[in-house]
Amino acid sequence: MFGCLPVICQHLPVTAVNTTMRLAALRQQMQAWNLTAYIIPDTDAHMSEYIGKHDERRAWISGFTGTAGNSHYPLSLLLLVDLNRSMEDLIGTQFDVFISPLLSREHRCAALAPLDLQKLLCSAAGTAVVTMGKAAVWTDSRYWTQAERQMDCNWELHKEVSISSIVTWILAEVPAGGRVGFDPFLFSVDSWENYYLQFQDSNRHLVSVTTNLVDLAWGSERPPVPSQPIYALPEEFTGSTWQEKVSTIRSYMQNHTRAPTGLLLSALDETAWLFNLRSSDIPYNPFFYSYTLLTDSSIRLFVNKSRFSPETLQYLNTNCTSPMCVQLEDYSQIRDSVKAYALGNVTILIGLSYTTYGLYEVIPKEKVVTNTYSPVMVMKAVKNSKEQALLKASHVRDAVVVIQYLVWLEKNVPKGTVDEFSGAEHIDELRRNENFSSGPSFETISASGLNAALAHYSPTKELHRKLSSDEMYLVDSGGQYWDGTTDITRTVHWGTPTAFQKEAYTRVLMGNIDLSRLIFPAATSGRMVDAVARKALWEVGLNYGHGTGHGIGNFLCVHEWPVGFQSNNIAMAKGMFTSIEPGYYQDGEFGIRLEDVVLVVEAKTKYPGTYLTFEVVSFVPYDRKLIDVSLLSPEQLQYLNRYYQTIRETVGPELQRRQLLEEFAWLEQHTKPLSAMAPHSTSVTSVWVVSALAILSWSS
Amino acid sequence: MFGCLPVICQHLPVTAVNTTMRLAALRQQMQAWNLTAYIIPDTDAHMSEYIGKHDERRAWISGFTGTAGNSHYPLSLLLLVDLNRSMEDLIGTQFDVFISPLLSREHRCAALAPLDLQKLLCSAAGTAVVTMGKAAVWTDSRYWTQAERQMDCNWELHKEVSISSIVTWILAEVPAGGRVGFDPFLFSVDSWENYYLQFQDSNRHLVSVTTNLVDLAWGSERPPVPSQPIYALPEEFTGSTWQEKVSTIRSYMQNHTRAPTGLLLSALDETAWLFNLRSSDIPYNPFFYSYTLLTDSSIRLFVNKSRFSPETLQYLNTNCTSPMCVQLEDYSQIRDSVKAYALGNVTILIGLSYTTYGLYEVIPKEKVVTNTYSPVMVMKAVKNSKEQALLKASHVRDAVVVIQYLVWLEKNVPKGTVDEFSGAEHIDELRRNENFSSGPSFETISASGLNAALAHYSPTKELHRKLSSDEMYLVDSGGQYWDGTTDITRTVHWGTPTAFQKEAYTRVLMGNIDLSRLIFPAATSGRMVDAVARKALWEVGLNYGHGTGHGIGNFLCVHEWPVGFQSNNIAMAKGMFTSIEPGYYQDGEFGIRLEDVVLVVEAKTKYPGTYLTFEVVSFVPYDRKLIDVSLLSPEQLQYLNRYYQTIRETVGPELQRRQLLEEFAWLEQHTKPLSAMAPHSTSVTSVWVVSALAILSWSS
Repeated sequence: MFGCLPVICQHLPVTAVNTTMRLAALRQQMQAWNLTAYIIPDTDAHMSEYIGKHDERRAWISGFTGTAGNSHYPLSLLLLVDLNRSMEDLIGTQFDVFISPLLSREHRCAALAPLDLQKLLCSAAGTAVVTMGKAAVWTDSRYWTQAERQMDCNWELHKEVSISSIVTWILAEVPAGGRVGFDPFLFSVDSWENYYLQFQDSNRHLVSVTTNLVDLAWGSERPPVPSQPIYALPEEFTGSTWQEKVSTIRSYMQNHTRAPTGLLLSALDETAWLFNLRSSDIPYNPFFYSYTLLTDSSIRLFVNKSRFSPETLQYLNTNCTSPMCVQLEDYSQIRDSVKAYALGNVTILIGLSYTTYGLYEVIPKEKVVTNTYSPVMVMKAVKNSKEQALLKASHVRDAVVVIQYLVWLEKNVPKGTVDEFSGAEHIDELRRNENFSSGPSFETISASGLNAALAHYSPTKELHRKLSSDEMYLVDSGGQYWDGTTDITRTVHWGTPTAFQKEAYTRVLMGNIDLSRLIFPAATSGRMVDAVARKALWEVGLNYGHGTGHGIGNFLCVHEWPVGFQSNNIAMAKGMFTSIEPGYYQDGEFGIRLEDVVLVVEAKTKYPGTYLTFEVVSFVPYDRKLIDVSLLSPEQLQYLNRYYQTIRETVGPELQRRQLLEEFAWLEQHTKPLSAMAPHSTSVTSVWVVSALAILSWSS
Repeated sequence: MFGCLPVICQHLPVTAVNTTMRLAALRQQMQAWNLTAYIIPDTDAHMSEYIGKHDERRAWISGFTGTAGNSHYPLSLLLLVDLNRSMEDLIGTQFDVFISPLLSREHRCAALAPLDLQKLLCSAAGTAVVTMGKAAVWTDSRYWTQAERQMDCNWELHKEVSISSIVTWILAEVPAGGRVGFDPFLFSVDSWENYYLQFQDSNRHLVSVTTNLVDLAWGSERPPVPSQPIYALPEEFTGSTWQEKVSTIRSYMQNHTRAPTGLLLSALDETAWLFNLRSSDIPYNPFFYSYTLLTDSSIRLFVNKSRFSPETLQYLNTNCTSPMCVQLEDYSQIRDSVKAYALGNVTILIGLSYTTYGLYEVIPKEKVVTNTYSPVMVMKAVKNSKEQALLKASHVRDAVVVIQYLVWLEKNVPKGTVDEFSGAEHIDELRRNENFSSGPSFETISASGLNAALAHYSPTKELHRKLSSDEMYLVDSGGQYWDGTTDITRTVHWGTPTAFQKEAYTRVLMGNIDLSRLIFPAATSGRMVDAVARKALWEVGLNYGHGTGHGIGNFLCVHEWPVGFQSNNIAMAKGMFTSIEPGYYQDGEFGIRLEDVVLVVEAKTKYPGTYLTFEVVSFVPYDRKLIDVSLLSPEQLQYLNRYYQTIRETVGPELQRRQLLEEFAWLEQHTKPLSAMAPHSTSVTSVWVVSALAILSWSS
């Protein structure tokens, strides 16, 4: 526990926010509701990865703006630093050493299967609790400095993140009989159960208050809820019509063992996918605030109706009430409507891992059917042939962007005119100029030298590093296009890399290749094969502290759940897309990551069976200068040259079509077949080649 | 659902057991307790892998004798057949495709992390429920035939195993207000919670009855509880004294975040390990019925006291009450004693995954501290240097046994005088003749030809197959020795194997080698690397449907929890032992498994870091005739020849010392270095060698 001392308080940093009035306003609301404490998490009512400004309640009340969702790699530093350090203590608590940092907190935390660790790591980038006399924030080591700079003396900082430490504090501050309020729309069912179990028998009462008290205190200062239009995707950018999707899901429901009469969709990308609708309520995500209650006889869409044009209303068939008409209800009505629906002779299916307690609590237990993920989540993950073609097309255009950027860097970095921020701006600009562009799919990570080893680094206008021929440079970026979402990472060097940099880069590449060309049985979980991407690094004592990949959508989430290589990802199936992105990070020196998006396809095997493998749909060559060919096995080399041939055949014509001749020449140059070289020094391959020679000279 | 029809009942198979009197006796007890239904699982009060005769309550009451614990591979067939078949249905329910069949049901079922699947698969080899008018057994497809042959017409057979199907049936049979009794000592906390949640709001009452009603009905016919002596292991066979172990655990408790004052040990191998005591209550397991309540100031051992000799009593220091004295209490007192202890200002740590509800329910919630596994379970898994040396020594003697057996087979199989059963008897006999032998560590699997593809096959005196030079033969066996427990599988062919048999065998071997030589970061979970043992098989469309390995003890469990390659195994640590046992099974033709026991050791890596690898301690060569050397990579070949050299150096001198000259000559012959041969046909290696040639002729 840590609080700022009075003496320090007289010299508050200028970065601190005065929260006295804000707290007074909140406490007034608490009094009105007869609450002795109030819990404020930093999520939204859809357990989104990124949250909107008007949902940043914990930030507003405390001044501390750190949020799990505001960077591409929120958890990896924690894992690299804290987990490795405390590995010894954790023996006996089995867990995935390599939890993906690429996913929303709810999802990442669910990945930490054992409850002990969940409690340890997952009560958010920061939860606040306010009592009548005190206010406190719980956050982890990533945010301590930031929180200390931003919070004034009304606040205590607790350098822990477990729910049990929050509850222990509340029990000390709240007298017996006290009422502890919370907004049930900001609690997952799981975190509610956690709090509930810990308050049991304590004579403190957890009180679900559906009116958010911070919002009341925030008042007119609170940023408005988005109201821009919600539009339907043109048919050429959709895999099926919403009517087809509704029919498929209804037949899934009928065939489900418990044959639920209703399906409640809480995640924003579920509703966006189902109706082929998009908007821009959340940064980098083309979603809009909504819920869907799909029943056997009705389609009820909860949304701000005024955001639809007459054409879109017609598209949704809103002027009727038959089973294939969409009935619009106000977003705010969801709880009451679910409650009313649940009064009937019904059962309601929910995706348990991302439905909030605010909706869960109004469904009688015997009427709720829980799957970890809703059927929409699972169907969305398997792209049909049209969706596959759309996603691939967006990746071809995206490859043009990245190749243009790499050519531009090659020319301009030596002049000393590029920095991380201007680089990021340039690639974002290149993407925006592409057909069907709808901006970047996340904040571009543009990191030079030692900055690339920082887990959640993005340059700013004020704070960035100049790119140089003496340093490695990592760029992790992606676009939202009407046909698909992209995400690719390349790491390059324009000067002379060290032998260690080359070895690390090559082994990261070997991991990428080994996983990409793996053949595995249908329905294998990603986590079963994650290690394949690490083996080449492990062999010499290297590794990376983040997940190996994540699903990706058709103009939806760049981190699309539930596909990937973590424990709580679902089994791989033909038609899924995932990134494959091993890396290596040398603290204070450099960082390497090679990320491609791949499609899960059927593999042809010698003996019959349903086996899968991956087909890479990112079409940008790696940096030849950083590849130590002598480390590659003949199979890896053969694979790489085949991949380069595919790139040439796929992107080459597009570059020519656009008259991007410089880029075309660059592509030809950078995808020339690599050939094995005589081994130098003590590489593993030297053993191999020596063995090969020996074998060839041996008699059988 | 399936019940035998009246017409069939008139022609009951002679194998059926008349249960009319048994059921009448049970129903009389149920009436006395005012119960309308009674649930009878087939486990014991310690959630043991194998259960004693006097615990086979479900078998006695129903006549159906199938138990999950009565074979070495109970679940694998289920997984091979049922899971693969229903894979499509299960998409969306993520799970390990390859759950180990090598573990006790409780553990295996815990491995099926998602609750849906747990419910689907894990309500045992068979649960019985008896009402006043009906009686029913729920079992899975492995047991349908057996159950139909063994059960009379008092019984219904339900071809399902989910708790929800049991509860649905009970709800239909038991009127509102009815009382459903169960023995809380036969319910894990988890299965109790499952039943509890499903009966919630149903107006049927789950009633915990600590007196087992089947035992009362069984009466004097019930086999007696074991009463043979419990003895202390000689000091030369123990890694530390019990006093040292007690001290270590007490300091663990003090340093635990919740500093529990007491530790309750429920698993039989926990108490046996803690006190270095052994007996033979359970088949193949040198355990005795017991519990331990270790507190900060006392050591309370719950056991039948009359089983100790005066020397053992002195060894345990039972004549005092200070913190280092063992206080003996009767086995039957455990519940009352825990209850009484829990009245004080105490907290009690339990291993949640194998403590029964019978003990859990008497500890107030705020006083119970739960870990998945107790610290004893985790410490036991990490062998100290003396324990490592002991386990290795037992494996050297065990290698002599297996080599003697293989030599004997080589001479006798061609004569046509050996069958599966006589073979098993012979190897068991060889083991019994070894120093420090205490019999086999499980029922020997001796399987020829197509029988080796059956998941839970063991030959019997009546039913077995003759061994032949025309068939492959698989022998999976192990011994209990005072210094260690062993487990090894070899597959051989004395004639001419087919090309497919050779390829499958070689790929199984490649998997074994690839995993054995893997270098991985400290604290990696076994499940992260399981696929390494499958990759060579997957490549051509082959696989195996069981786990890749399991922990093993020092004269303790042959399947020692919680080490292994499944989801709920703890992270790998230096000093752990595990088996590595990939396989391949061709239905109706042959089965291959190559199993070795390995020690987790530190790996030296090029770059600094704490990395681990395995050291094989099983010292028996593979069948040269079945190895297609052309499939092996140079690294695999080099590894194999180094392993063979280790075998020669380790076992050779022992064979010479014993004047086993024929075996010594056999060993020399079978561990000669293998050399790469020119590739034939279309093997993968042909590509490799062609590439090698190509590379050597390329210029860089």
